Amino acid sequence: MEIVLLCIGKTDRTFWVDPIEEYVKRLKHYTKFSIQCVNDNKVQKKMQPSELKNKEAKSILQKIKPGDFVYLLDEKGKSFSSNGLSKKIEQHMIGASQRIVFIIGGAYGFSEKIYLKFPNKISLSDMTFSHQMVRLFFCEQLYRAFTIINKHPYHNS
Amino acid sequence: MEIVLLCIGKTDRTFWVDPIEEYVKRLKHYTKFSIQCVNDNKVQKKMQPSELKNKEAKSILQKIKPGDFVYLLDEKGKSFSSNGLSKKIEQHMIGASQRIVFIIGGAYGFSEKIYLKFPNKISLSDMTFSHQMVRLFFCEQLYRAFTIINKHPYHNS
Repeated sequence: MEIVLLCIGKTDRTFWVDPIEEYVKRLKHYTKFSIQCVNDNKVQKKMQPSELKNKEAKSILQKIKPGDFVYLLDEKGKSFSSNGLSKKIEQHMIGASQRIVFIIGGAYGFSEKIYLKFPNKISLSDMTFSHQMVRLFFCEQLYRAFTIINKHPYHNS
Repeated sequence: MEIVLLCIGKTDRTFWVDPIEEYVKRLKHYTKFSIQCVNDNKVQKKMQPSELKNKEAKSILQKIKPGDFVYLLDEKGKSFSSNGLSKKIEQHMIGASQRIVFIIGGAYGFSEKIYLKFPNKISLSDMTFSHQMVRLFFCEQLYRAFTIINKHPYHNS
């Protein structure tokens, strides 16, 4: 099984890169994991939100392969405890999907097209985070999920 | 008004220090804010959880001044949206408390004594995080709360 975190735009601030890289490194002990970024169309800042979301949807869809199981990380999604998320991941490990793709939306969220195509949504918190924070948040929870699945102690730092 | 984030143990991993410091720096534009750490008794690792929690409670209580308004950051607490948290902070800004103290518990949570003394609990997510992550998480949300209160754009990076 392979897990992909699909994001809009790169992680360009050093203070975010280091902790995210740390969890990506830790995750490699457990699974094939990568963060993939699609362009965030920064040059076209005057674009309307709906136009931007449609452009982002197009870029997202290009990254999805047939047979992928997709979750949107979205505030309208279902909340999970860390144990709950680990159970979900475990189910996929014995399931048929080759790739599980978690997607973090752009500044204005997802287009309607994306919501219709991918009905599975996970909410990480009732609070709103910066996109960079969501990346770190997710990587830490995914790492935690694998420590739970493998009954390994969690490195609490 | 002064805001304090009270934690058990220091932030000793560089990859956590940088993003946390970034938000502490940003928060200084809005309020008097500091992170205060009490010893995490690392030397006494063989201590029972209850004993450790009692020791931590003692250290926590030494840091609390009369008139402080205290919130425990605790998974059993009430969930807030980012807007909800900003409203809470705004209420305190026009309230009587000189200091608002948010406390992150130790590895085993809080002792019963602390729960009884400080009934106000805030849950950041249904998920469990490392203590370092909770620090960053909280600082980012506090910064976001102040950008909401001041109607400032949020620096989404």
